[in-house]
Formats: sequence, C-alpha cells, structure tokens
Amino acid sequence: MTTTPFLHAAEDGQRYNLTSPTAMPRAAAFLWNQQMMIQVNCRGFAIAQHMQPEPGKYAYAPNLEAKTFMQPEQPYFAHHPGRFVYIKDEETGEIFSAPYEPVRKKTESFTFSAGQSDITWFVKDAGVEVTLTVSLPTKDVVELWSLKVKNVSGKARKLSIYPFFTIGYMSWMNQSAQYRQDLGGIVASCITPYQKVKDYPMIKTLKDKTFFLHNTQPTSWEVAREAFEGEGGLHNPDGLQGEQLANGDAIYETPAAVLQYREALENGAEKQYRFLFGPAHSDADIEQLRDKYFADGAFEQSAEDYAAYLAKGNGVLKIKTPDEGLDNFVNNWLGRQVYYHGDVNRLTTDPQTRNYIQDNMGMTYIMPSVTRAAFLHALSQQEETGSMPDGILIHEDAELKYINQIPHTDHCVWVPVCLQAYLDETGDYNILNEPVKSAEGDYVATVFERTTNAMRWLLKDRDERGLNYIAQGDWCDPMNMVGYKGKGVSGWLSVATAYALKLWAKVAVQHNQQAVADELLSGAADIAKAVQTHLWDGDWFGRGITDDGVVFGISKDVEGRIFLNPQSWAMLADIVTPEQQAKMVTAIEEQLETPYGVAMCAPAFTKMREDVGRVTQKWPGSAENGSVYNHAAVFYIYSLYVAEGGKNAELGERAFKLLRQMIPGPDTEDYLQRGQMPVYIPNYYRGAYYQFPRTAGRSSQLFNTGTVSWVYRSLVDGLFGVKGCAKGLEIAPQLPKAWNEASVTRLFRGATFNINYVRGTAFNITVEGATVEANVISGFESGKTYSVTVTIA
Amino acid sequence: MTTTPFLHAAEDGQRYNLTSPTAMPRAAAFLWNQQMMIQVNCRGFAIAQHMQPEPGKYAYAPNLEAKTFMQPEQPYFAHHPGRFVYIKDEETGEIFSAPYEPVRKKTESFTFSAGQSDITWFVKDAGVEVTLTVSLPTKDVVELWSLKVKNVSGKARKLSIYPFFTIGYMSWMNQSAQYRQDLGGIVASCITPYQKVKDYPMIKTLKDKTFFLHNTQPTSWEVAREAFEGEGGLHNPDGLQGEQLANGDAIYETPAAVLQYREALENGAEKQYRFLFGPAHSDADIEQLRDKYFADGAFEQSAEDYAAYLAKGNGVLKIKTPDEGLDNFVNNWLGRQVYYHGDVNRLTTDPQTRNYIQDNMGMTYIMPSVTRAAFLHALSQQEETGSMPDGILIHEDAELKYINQIPHTDHCVWVPVCLQAYLDETGDYNILNEPVKSAEGDYVATVFERTTNAMRWLLKDRDERGLNYIAQGDWCDPMNMVGYKGKGVSGWLSVATAYALKLWAKVAVQHNQQAVADELLSGAADIAKAVQTHLWDGDWFGRGITDDGVVFGISKDVEGRIFLNPQSWAMLADIVTPEQQAKMVTAIEEQLETPYGVAMCAPAFTKMREDVGRVTQKWPGSAENGSVYNHAAVFYIYSLYVAEGGKNAELGERAFKLLRQMIPGPDTEDYLQRGQMPVYIPNYYRGAYYQFPRTAGRSSQLFNTGTVSWVYRSLVDGLFGVKGCAKGLEIAPQLPKAWNEASVTRLFRGATFNINYVRGTAFNITVEGATVEANVISGFESGKTYSVTVTIA
Repeated sequence: MTTTPFLHAAEDGQRYNLTSPTAMPRAAAFLWNQQMMIQVNCRGFAIAQHMQPEPGKYAYAPNLEAKTFMQPEQPYFAHHPGRFVYIKDEETGEIFSAPYEPVRKKTESFTFSAGQSDITWFVKDAGVEVTLTVSLPTKDVVELWSLKVKNVSGKARKLSIYPFFTIGYMSWMNQSAQYRQDLGGIVASCITPYQKVKDYPMIKTLKDKTFFLHNTQPTSWEVAREAFEGEGGLHNPDGLQGEQLANGDAIYETPAAVLQYREALENGAEKQYRFLFGPAHSDADIEQLRDKYFADGAFEQSAEDYAAYLAKGNGVLKIKTPDEGLDNFVNNWLGRQVYYHGDVNRLTTDPQTRNYIQDNMGMTYIMPSVTRAAFLHALSQQEETGSMPDGILIHEDAELKYINQIPHTDHCVWVPVCLQAYLDETGDYNILNEPVKSAEGDYVATVFERTTNAMRWLLKDRDERGLNYIAQGDWCDPMNMVGYKGKGVSGWLSVATAYALKLWAKVAVQHNQQAVADELLSGAADIAKAVQTHLWDGDWFGRGITDDGVVFGISKDVEGRIFLNPQSWAMLADIVTPEQQAKMVTAIEEQLETPYGVAMCAPAFTKMREDVGRVTQKWPGSAENGSVYNHAAVFYIYSLYVAEGGKNAELGERAFKLLRQMIPGPDTEDYLQRGQMPVYIPNYYRGAYYQFPRTAGRSSQLFNTGTVSWVYRSLVDGLFGVKGCAKGLEIAPQLPKAWNEASVTRLFRGATFNINYVRGTAFNITVEGATVEANVISGFESGKTYSVTVTIA
Repeated sequence: MTTTPFLHAAEDGQRYNLTSPTAMPRAAAFLWNQQMMIQVNCRGFAIAQHMQPEPGKYAYAPNLEAKTFMQPEQPYFAHHPGRFVYIKDEETGEIFSAPYEPVRKKTESFTFSAGQSDITWFVKDAGVEVTLTVSLPTKDVVELWSLKVKNVSGKARKLSIYPFFTIGYMSWMNQSAQYRQDLGGIVASCITPYQKVKDYPMIKTLKDKTFFLHNTQPTSWEVAREAFEGEGGLHNPDGLQGEQLANGDAIYETPAAVLQYREALENGAEKQYRFLFGPAHSDADIEQLRDKYFADGAFEQSAEDYAAYLAKGNGVLKIKTPDEGLDNFVNNWLGRQVYYHGDVNRLTTDPQTRNYIQDNMGMTYIMPSVTRAAFLHALSQQEETGSMPDGILIHEDAELKYINQIPHTDHCVWVPVCLQAYLDETGDYNILNEPVKSAEGDYVATVFERTTNAMRWLLKDRDERGLNYIAQGDWCDPMNMVGYKGKGVSGWLSVATAYALKLWAKVAVQHNQQAVADELLSGAADIAKAVQTHLWDGDWFGRGITDDGVVFGISKDVEGRIFLNPQSWAMLADIVTPEQQAKMVTAIEEQLETPYGVAMCAPAFTKMREDVGRVTQKWPGSAENGSVYNHAAVFYIYSLYVAEGGKNAELGERAFKLLRQMIPGPDTEDYLQRGQMPVYIPNYYRGAYYQFPRTAGRSSQLFNTGTVSWVYRSLVDGLFGVKGCAKGLEIAPQLPKAWNEASVTRLFRGATFNINYVRGTAFNITVEGATVEANVISGFESGKTYSVTVTIA
C-alpha cells in the first residue's frame, strides 16, 4: 500500500488515523445507533441527528437554520456546531484547543483516529497530551465523551481545561441554559418553533433540552455563547482571560456549554473526565442518563456493548488481496456502512421506496432476517394497481414528505432486482409464498403475486411505443420535467423494466409459473425492441424521450450527451448486441470515465434544459448533474461483472478499476483531491472532470447512498464470484489480472468457506482437497468450515 | 440632554453617532425603499431583504438558513452576513478592519453614524482614515457604497485595501461566483432550491445573482469564502498574507466578494471607491445598474433623490420641548419609522389585516392619500359576513401565509378605530360614501356600510354571555388555545369591540344614521355589562375566559396575573367607573410598570399553560409573554391621554412618563441596558423586570411594529393636543408638569400652525394674537401660516 504522510491505517484497517487537521479539512467519520447518528470532522465540527420520530438536532448553528439532514460538501465556519476543549497554561496564558478548532493552533502533534465504534483525537502541544474520545451507547440518544489530559512536559504545570460544546441558536420562541448543580451539568432548554394549535401535541413530546453533564465537578462554567466569546472571538474567547468563568446564565440568549477545570498537574500526571451530551425531554430523563452512564464501569460496558452492536455489521465476506486499501475497506468499513443503511434507514420515517428496498438488499449480507421483514413491509404498502408508493412509511406517525410527494415511476423495478439478491444469498424461496396483507385494506396476496403485479404495473405504465413513462422522475429524482405532462418516457426505466421482467420470469419458472414467465418475457422482448427502435443512437442508448417527443442523452446533445444508466441496465437486461456493447463501453470510457470513477452523465448541464428538468439546474459536476454519482457508477460496475455471464475478462478488469476508484486513496494526491478518508463511500465525487478539473474528485462527504449495497453485491457476485444459487455456492471469480492470489472467508447459509484463489493453468475448484465438478459447492453443512482452493487460469 | 460618552446626536438630531463598537454591539440603523430594506449594525453585520415579490436575500448566512425576515435580538457571529473593509499596511503587515468586524481591532477612533438617508462609519487607525457609507436609491434594489481611505499619518504609506462583502451559502442546488471583467465586478449565481415542477415558473423569475461591482479596477480579487479565509479565520484571513489575492473562482463553493486595491498614498492623499451590491436576475440587469449608478454624478443625484424620498416622511408635527432627546426622535425619526411602515407594509405581500390598517393609520400623518387608498383596499377584501380576513393581499401573486393562516377574531375592530384618526386628521367624511366593490364578487357597499357590517359581525361573533369569541387569537397572535375549541372569549376583544362600536356610533350620528348609532350603542352597552359581570376581578379586568370557562389574567393566577390590554381598552371604551379606573392604574403601576416601559402582562409565564396557548411558551419577558411590548404599551398610553376626555392631569403625566420610556436614553445606563440608539422604537424591550432583571430593558432591535402609528397619534391627540375634528383643530395639550414651555409646528389640512405653549394662570388660546373662544381653531385657510399661543394653567 502506498503510504501517505498524513493518513495511516491502524489495527489491520479497523482504524484510520489522520495526522493533519488541514490536509483534508472536511475528512469526517460517523457513529450511529438506532436512535441517532453523529458525523464529526477531523477539526471537531459535528453534525448530529436523533429521531423523535422525525430527525431533530440538539446542537444548532448560530442562526435560524433550515430543517435539513446533511448537505453535500457541507461548509464549516467558525460557529458551526462542534465539540471542543481549550487548554490554557495558567502561568503563560497560552492557549490551544483540541481537536483543532476553534483556536486552530498548529499543535506539535495531531491525530484524528476514526475507529469502528469510537472517534478519538490525540493532540499534543507544549508538553500537554490531550486525548478526546466520543462513542455512542447502543440504544440511548447521548454522546459519551471521555477527555484525558496528561502533563508530559517534564515539570509541574498549572492548567485550565475548558470543554466547550456548542449548543447554538435553538429557537426564536424560547431558549435558555443554566448550570444545574442538581443534575451535574449544563442544561439548555427551548421550545421548537411552531404556530398551529394542531402541532402542539407533537411539539410537546419533543426532546427540547440539550444537556452537557460531567462526572467531575468543575471549577466554573459559562452557558451563554456571547458571554463566553466576548470580543475575543471563538479562537481567543474572553472567557479564557479571567481566572474563572463567570458562572452565568443564558436567558433568551444563545446557549453554549463551557466548563472550566483548574488543575495542578505534576509531571506525568493525568486527569480524566467524562461527559454526556445529548437531547432530553425532561430533567428526569437527564437524571436517568446520568445515573446510568456515570455508574462505575458504565462507559467501559457501553463501549463493549457498542462495539458488539456494530460488529453485527461484519457481513459475510473477509478478504485478503494484494490491495491493502481494498482489504481494509471491505473488511472493516463496507459492511459497517451497509449495516448503517439497513439498521436505521437513513434516519427517516418515510424512506424512498427505492432506497428502502436497495438498502435492505444490502442487509441480505448482514442480517437477512431484516431484509425479509423489510420486503414484506414494503410490499404491504403496494397500491391496488400494483404500483409501489414513493416512500415506505416505517413509523406509525410518518407521512410522505419532501421528494416522496413527487410522483416517480421506478419503484416497482427494485422489488425483483433486490429480492433476487436475497434469494441468492439465503435460498429462502419460501418467501415467495408468504402472504402479505395490505396496510390499508384487506387485500392479501403472496410475495410472488405482489411482485408479479408490480411487473404488470410496469408493463402497463408504458406509452404507445412500448416505453415506460417517467412522470416527474425515475431513479433520477430531479429529472422532473421530461414527462411531467404525461407523455415523456424513460429509456433507463424501460431497460430496467426489461431486466426486472427477465429476472422475475426466471423466478416464475422456478416457482412453476411458466405462464407468468412467458408473459413477462414477452413483455421484456417488446421493450427491448422498442428501446432498440427508439433509443439506440449509434454508439449508446438515449436517456429518454421528452413530453414533446425529443430523444435526449444522445450524440447531438451538447450537454447531457451520454448517460450511464441506460447503458448499464441495457447490459444487465441483456438486450444489446456484442457490437453495441463494445461501442457503449468505449463511449463510456471516452466520455464518462475519470480518475475518480465513472460519471453519471456528461457533459454536465451548465444551464436549465426545460424539457429535462431540475437535474440540469444542479451545479455541473455535483450530484445527479454529472458527478461521479457512485450509485450509478456501481450499477455500471455490476453490469460489467454480470454481462456475458461474467465471462468477459476485459469487462471484469474494467469493473475492478472503477470499483477501486470508489475508495479514496491510496495515493496522496488522490486523498488530497477527494478530501475524504476511506471509511465510507460517499454518494458522489465531483465530476465534470473536463469542465471543472480543479474540483473533480472532491467528496460530497455524505455517507447516505444506495451505492454500498451494490458494492457488496458486486464483490460477492462479481469480483470474488461467491454468489449463492438454488443449489449452493457458485464460484465464478473475476479477479484482476494483476492479482496472483487472494483469499476470502465467505460465510454462507451457516457455513464458513475459507477460499484461496491461486493462479494456475485451468479453472479448478477443490473443497477440502476434493475437486468440485461444476462450479457450485453444494451439500455443505451449516456450522461447518470448509477449505476451498480456486485455481484461476 | 444628558450626555453619554459613546452616543451623540448631531445635525439637530438628524444623525446619531455611536463612538464605540462594543458599548451597544447590536445597535443598528436601517434604510429602505419600496423594493428593499437593509438593517446594518454598528459593527458591520447586515440583514437585507428585497421583494420578488416575496422577501428574498442576496447575502446569506454560512449555512442553510431558514426562511425568516428578522429575528428578535438577532445574535451575530463571525460569519454573519456583513459588509467590511480590511486595511493592511504593506510595510508592517498590520491589519485592521472597518467597521469593526471581522478583525475587531480597537481602532484609535470609531464612529457609527446613523443618518436619515445614509449610514456612515468613520474609522481611524495607524494614521489611516476610513470613511464608509451606504445609501439606497429610491427605486432600484442595490446598495450604493462609497469608501474613502485617507493617509493622515504624516508620511507616505503603502496600503492594501480589501472590501469584503459576504455572500454566504446561497443554495445546495447550485452556487458559484466569478470575477467578471465584462461587468466590472464579482457576480455570484445560484438556483433557489425547490423540488416541485409547479414551483419552477416562479423560481425562474427570481433574482438569483448577487453582484458586487466596482468603479475602480482592483489589483486582484477572490470569490470563494474558504479560499480567502484559509486557516487564518475571518479575523486574520490567509488571503491577506500574500501580495495579491488569488483571483480564484467559486464553483459549488461558498461565494464571497473580495477585492484588493494596492495603493501608495502620500501624506494627506485620499482614494475614493464606489461599489454596488445587490441581487439581479440577469447579466443585463447588472449591466444596466452599473451604467446607471456609475455614471458621472449618479451617486450624488441618487443621494439627493433618496433624501427627498425619505423627507416625504416628515409628518405633520415638529416639536421643541425641554426634552432634547424627545425632540430629536419626534422631529427626525418617528415620522421616518411611521413612513417606513406605510410605505412598504413591512415588506410582505400579505400584511396582517390589523397591521395593515394600523400602519396606514400612521400614514394619515404622513400621506393621508395612501391611508385612504389602503382603507378602500382593505375593505374590498372584507368577507360577505362582514368579517375582515386575517391578511390583506397587496400583490397579485400573494396568498395568506404563516400567521395569516390561523383564525383571529379582532380584525374588524381596527377599521373604525383607525378610520377615526384619518377622519380627525383630514375631515374627509366623503370617504364614508365611497363605494367599495368586493375583490372577489360583485358586492358593492360604501365604506360606511362596510364598516357598519364589520361592527355587526363583531356583535354577532359573541357567546351567550355577550363576550367576543377569540378563536385561535385576537390582537395577541400566540394566544391560540384560549378559544380554539370554539367557546373561549377574549376580554380584550370584548372591550375593544365596545370601543369600536362607540366610535362608529358617533360617526353614524354625524352620518345621519341614528338608527345604526342606536343599534351599536345598545350593543356596546350589552358588552360593557357582560364584561363587568364576567371579567371584573376586583382590581382589574381579566384577559378572557377559556374554552373550559376559566377566567384568566386575574388575581388568583400566579403567572399571567394581569394583562395590560383589557385595562387600556376598557378605559378607551369608557366603560369603567372612576373607582375601577383608579384601581386599574394602581395595579398596572405596581405590577406592570418598569424603568423601560409598561409590560404587557406579568408575571411572565415560565411554563406552558395549555388553556392559554403558545404565548405562554415564549421566553418569559420576550415578545407577547410579558415584555415591554410597545404596541400594547402605547395603547395604554393613548388610553391615559384620552380617558376622562383628557382632563385628568395625573393620567396625562403618567402617559408622558411611559411614552418617554419608549425612546432609548438619555442616560448612559439606559442606553447600555437597551443596547439601541434612539433612531426607532423597537417592537419590544425585554420585560419580566422582577423575574429577570439582568436582561430587562434589552431591545428586540426589530423596527417593524404597530407601535409608532399610535405614538404619533398620542402626540397629536394627547401630549400636544392638536387633534383635528369636524370643525377644525382642537387644542387640548397635556404637557408634563415639569415643562414650562414648548412649541410645535403643526401642519393641518394645508395650513401651518406655529404653536407656543406657555404657563399662565388660566387656559387660553390666541391665534395671531386673537383669543379663541372654544378650544377649536376653525376658519383657517390652506396654505397659510398661523401663530398660536396656548396658555396652560
């Protein structure tokens, strides 16, 4: 692995240590449990959300914020919410802060260490070592902070230590904060703004208090941001000038949580403090959390429990390859990110149907029982027409909001496409016979019937040409003006429908429903023909046809000339000729591939195209407008792996190259450009590589993305070729040429397979030394471990 | 006038000069025209809004902001929007900034000078004088900035001068900025975020560009906030470290507008620069503004025009009294603030009906033709039932939003109450016969008929006790749970209805509609009886009766024990006995009067009272929950002036004391506590004087308030006693005892009256030396000036 001066893997890739606060200033890590998530960047800025049941905050910006989850490439600024500690030398008056903000002093050493279940900073300056750690418990909504300050200066020191946790502008209706001796810390309170009587019953249930509790009595405190900051600014607050903080209150003033510990430390002496930070509904809740987490050994027990909780995301694949960065990511971080999605459904109460289904496809590799329940739940909200709704309500108080109020036509596609992964992995064909009752109404139908109905809805929702309507969006949410008049069609959705139909036809055959299979295959053939007739542009497929009959995403377009999705899914649907496929792959290479992955479309739109819609108004190279949108990129990667039955080595080679580009690094330049640590795959890297090279590759820093389920599936089905099938474990690796060997541990239907890939003259599989005739390992037993050698030509 | 070390009136009170950036850090001034307004504080932070037609911004916070006009006691923070200039000594590298932020250097001198039609800073440090001025044109949406930098150091200097105008986080969809040689400045562009196709036609009309144009070619520039700021922070930006700025771009990065001028200045030499800052829809718009305002003499002409435009707010009263602070405020600032309200209707397209009517009542003293048109417009939106809607639509695209979607029951009251002021001032009784056609529908009725219908609606909208329903609010918007079940009643609205009925009955008599007058007076008598029966609590009137039949705002209440409004309006309605009135005034003095004015209720609620509503959830002492809410305070003041026909000198004395408390100063302690200059009356000063003395008196810094119309009316009808009536100008002053003399110039129905008040043995009026028998001056001629002497006992 190439080494980079400021970034180092540790503990076999389970941690990544960033030793500069300025090289990748937005580099961040995240922790979550089922109630909350926190993303913290290397400099100490943080974004945290908890569910009540809609996502809420407990540390706010300094002004009245819009309600938003996270924004791509979130800019940080001096008063952005964060968690900090100031250290003041009482004798010299000098200060520094950990992590790095707000003082921004270039300390002697700095390490931001992102672990699986904790985030830790080690900061050393002027003979003082500061260790700051945050973790979460498995269930409660509270940040568990631990702070150690050690004197390593070789002499006795007098220090003041000031934890400073921002609280921010809570509400124009009512906000305040007090030091609470009875609770042992600072409690800020607010009333979430509202105007209508009908909102009051919900408002009064909210956790409108933010607490910062200590386990060690402080010397002094301050709870008003401006009183603390004074004229000095956050980088040099007036509050630090005095011997003690003012022990003030905040009464309709912006709250902050600041404590002071005045300590005399002998050389080598260390002080340790613990803090709890989070939201609460009442004093009683706060008291209960205090008693629970400040009990003896509670932090240690919680850390153990939380590590065990996150370890449930380990997944079914551990790898060892010549690519250490890949190994680190796949073994430690990919499953974790997949698990995050399936575990908390992006902390929303109404996930988009396509996200919900794909995220739960990923859970197939983590906790297949969750996937099973999610499919049944999603199908229970299928409409009578067979259509799937725009979002799946997963909380009793939930309603469809934001983007889910805009009609999209693709949701049915995801049912068979993602169910296939579940069936492959688990062999649980029984699910097909599971009866599902409508959430509203008495209609009961099996999973097989409902999925078939979804396929029929897709077949029906087509125009006279046989192409699928797009309405106000398909997979691409902001492509909202292609078909808003009711006529426009989606090229991508048409080929995706064909793929879904073909997949489901195979299931139908297995399910002894040949007539259904025939019906679906006939529909797929129709669509294939229509797509070939109306959308093939000579070197690639167009993206769609507008309400006014204009084909777009074609060679004569100056912007949005080529879109990735129609090509990927045409290959998945297997409706292309070898000549077409070669042309498409070449066109993609020439126009969409970049050093940071494959872009979703190009050239990015630089101005509104009114017959395409809002996607063309996004910044060129950001999000759906021509970024390396990893969700689309991984569709292409997956299609390269499965095209031609996985037999085309060149496609597999290309698939690996593009897959590897999803993970930041390993080169220094790459890290600097992306600005992200390899602890998750972001939803996009900036694209528009030829239009705006300066910013191309920059990470969105958003870890919510449908990408990771498909990355997992690509590793299983494609790269390592260890997919399940009805008969057992099918071995069909597509390792890159450069690898002479690799090994994986594959958990599969209760058994463990230790698989070594070696190069040899001919393809061959042995299990416990015995050659397997076909490429499917069957007859294994749950609970047992098998040694497998796969020889690749 | 008491002098205060940091605040000085200048130009006969037309300017106020604040010479400390830290004594009153939120002290601010505002400018407006019919398209926009800007409030700038002494330190350089700014809030600006323009109409498109809904209020929009062109300089944003550093994060995704909620859509909000202005917030009370708006907290400022390092990256808050503002307009700044850094000055760097090229030889020493030392920097300071004007106004004060972002460097916050304590410069040798500082003056924030709020004028009528400009806001100017004079900052001097290290031998450099910086003069920074902003003004607006009368019509266009653009800030006109002028910057002068003079070397007064006694030697030649090399300086770099960096105007830094924040632009901020414009949009997550699309934001960028570039230096545009062709346009001569920096242009930032964005797409206002939206999701629905139906919003696109509006979105595409928005002024989504922010420009910063110069009339002098800069040495270099920067347009990306983070590139400029670097690791140094805004107080010491990296951008200033180099010889030149980087001439960068901002591509999906937070924009900023920074220019550099490298100048060699001989001793005594001065450089002057002009800048235009504002929003635009297109490059063509920007070009047009540039050509218009950078033309020779255009700034000067615009300044003249704008001064003339604001001078239209001069009003009908100029005073000279022993109270210089009062004179300054009344002569220069009160009319200006009244004019602001009437001129732009708080920059909303759907002003609340009560605000629209009261604000336009104020315009009676400024431009009565505007008042006349506004009354006709408001009445055209009266509902068929006689009810007035919750808001008045004043733009074709407007719809009722926010608070106007919540049903209030008081809007009818304001029609006769405010029309009375118009009739008094103008004698335009013809308006009563003016036919008004419904905005929707063909119903035509005269102003008299419509107002009578409004009165009948109020009479009808009462419960079995004869008290007025409150629904989800009356004048007090957040008192939303007293009557939301349909039963609760408002004590205030009941007495206000009685007052309105009595006023209108008098008009009916004049209008020869005795039957109507009898009907209304009978209703008023009913209400008076009901109020006395159900709401008199022994020493004051209760505020209302809840849905569950609980009287509140009474002595047994621990919080919200006494409310000001029911007392004030009972006095206005003249339904109280002398004994009751004495008790009420005493109770108010004891429980509601504070050094900063009279509070709206006390004790302020510290927790939700579910049968009163949202008002009890506001921070105690803020806004409607027990602040010195000046709108309520001035109702009381007005009632003291008019009670007992203005014959009770003690009430008049009290009225003046409370009126004077509305204006900050003149004592240093008072200024420090309020934190506001006497250039407007804010909507509130913090109350809860006994509960939270530390913050009591603090200004909200919000200049949108129904208060000022009533202050004007109180001066005219009360203090100086120069109200109009059917016969002419009625003279009935209520000067404070401490004043031995005073004089006013009163413009009235085209004539000018120079009135001198002197003390003497008996009340006497002379006009041009001739004694007037009654206290009404009549028979005067428009266009003429009269010398009047009023002798007061």
